[in-house]
Amino acid sequence: MPPAPSLSPEVLAPLAEIEAALARAVEGTDTPTLLRDAMAYATLDGGKRLRPLLAWHACVAAGGEGPESLPACVAVELVHCFSLVHDDLPALDNDDLRRGRPTLHRHAGEAMAILAGDALLTHAFGVLATTAPADRFGPLARELAAACERMIAGQVLDTLGFEGEPDADTMTDQQRLEAVHHGKTGAMLVASLRMGGLCAAVKDGVSEGILDRLTTFGHAVGLMFQVVDDLLDVTQTSEHLGKRSGKDAEAGKLTYPRVLGVDRSRALVRELEADAIEALAPVGDLGDLGANAEPLRALAQYLAVRTR
Amino acid sequence: MPPAPSLSPEVLAPLAEIEAALARAVEGTDTPTLLRDAMAYATLDGGKRLRPLLAWHACVAAGGEGPESLPACVAVELVHCFSLVHDDLPALDNDDLRRGRPTLHRHAGEAMAILAGDALLTHAFGVLATTAPADRFGPLARELAAACERMIAGQVLDTLGFEGEPDADTMTDQQRLEAVHHGKTGAMLVASLRMGGLCAAVKDGVSEGILDRLTTFGHAVGLMFQVVDDLLDVTQTSEHLGKRSGKDAEAGKLTYPRVLGVDRSRALVRELEADAIEALAPVGDLGDLGANAEPLRALAQYLAVRTR
Repeated sequence: MPPAPSLSPEVLAPLAEIEAALARAVEGTDTPTLLRDAMAYATLDGGKRLRPLLAWHACVAAGGEGPESLPACVAVELVHCFSLVHDDLPALDNDDLRRGRPTLHRHAGEAMAILAGDALLTHAFGVLATTAPADRFGPLARELAAACERMIAGQVLDTLGFEGEPDADTMTDQQRLEAVHHGKTGAMLVASLRMGGLCAAVKDGVSEGILDRLTTFGHAVGLMFQVVDDLLDVTQTSEHLGKRSGKDAEAGKLTYPRVLGVDRSRALVRELEADAIEALAPVGDLGDLGANAEPLRALAQYLAVRTR
Repeated sequence: MPPAPSLSPEVLAPLAEIEAALARAVEGTDTPTLLRDAMAYATLDGGKRLRPLLAWHACVAAGGEGPESLPACVAVELVHCFSLVHDDLPALDNDDLRRGRPTLHRHAGEAMAILAGDALLTHAFGVLATTAPADRFGPLARELAAACERMIAGQVLDTLGFEGEPDADTMTDQQRLEAVHHGKTGAMLVASLRMGGLCAAVKDGVSEGILDRLTTFGHAVGLMFQVVDDLLDVTQTSEHLGKRSGKDAEAGKLTYPRVLGVDRSRALVRELEADAIEALAPVGDLGDLGANAEPLRALAQYLAVRTR
């Protein structure tokens, strides 16, 4: 077996600042101790921080300084953690294990998991409202709200199906999978990149061209992330994943390996990786994207071959 | 029995515009049909629209035009409806009936109720981000996020108790009740008033003095609202309430009639009504509040004597 891929120190360097900002945001909340503890349980000590890393490096790729992206980093991670807490609930995915520990509802009860999820979602907007530069709060909150709505929509399609959708009768399984995942995973990954870009304090603001490139990159990486996740579910053990494996097949769920087969799923990962890398290629009139995009490129390559 | 109190046509006049704005906000959402239907079920056709009415009339009292408050009206009602959907869930209050109809989880299942609640909360920020004037979106979103966090904190204290709170051992039952209700009900009522005030397009913006008065008014009305609610629970039948009555006593819950007795609870309502009215008294340097505050005064008086 080849050695597990790893990320370079350059890519991971922002993690300390991201963790510190996240801890400040959660532990500094003026709220009942039990609720703050539940919020901290669901957000701190664990998690790959993929979304904050994308936001940070998108900010750098767009010509900004990494720390300018921290309001976005914290907001997208809070929304991500909220979504995990609610998706794990008994009425939804009914998961007992998350990041190798009991899920929040197993740890603190279902009532607290529902309320702490609500609080994390609200706090994402609260943190953004109090830490983002005044002139960029509007666009950032718009991105966050729109992506979060799309994420919830994806979860609805995944959990409750396509009944009532105008094109439900003619959609292929692959189209359904993409609709689910563009929402469930893709929307927040794209928003992380765009919000990071929007945080860059560059002259005249970040150009639409750069935001478009980050969006294209995000769509490719988001879908790739999900295909790899589905592949891991059939090829890895629970121990490696830190959550139950083989669960998708057990639940009769649509997954890429089920719809396309393992080989074509792997080929799709390579295609999407190439699309992502291409979106970062330097283009004369797009400013610095390209020159500063090496960490984003490394993240895409890592996500294509990650083993856990 | 005296005739049931009613609100004047002047107070209720904005309802048509408020309902229309709310319907546009929910039915115009670009999201899966099933989710949009659930969001509509939880928000349209029902509800007294107390929070939007407070926002609208606060805007007028602060010297603005009522329709300027619509972004705030819609946002506060969406947050209110989200909170009802989640609070009704089996893991929380486990209610089957709301506004005389099955609660959302009884109607559409628990998974949908969790996700539709999440979507309504997110959409509140989304609507504000896309409809509030750009120069006021920041302050409005800050108010909404802070109030929503306090509301969730109040629900946590109510559902899970005061364990871990620094002053838990020395708090009286009345202090606990107030802590719960200042969060659970008060925070969003205060935010409705302040956000309505903030929407008023007046020269140099709405003064801190006026916002302070609206805050004082809101705290009094919010607490009064809850005391009246507790009184209704012991004196009314389910048929009148449109939800189960006598439930608080059954659950052994702290309520004002239990802690203070019915007579002292009624006296407290009269005191809080007086506090609310006093907050609206005209004061020379506070601009128009007072002259235009008649609808707010009428709302306070109505809430003090409402029978359902």
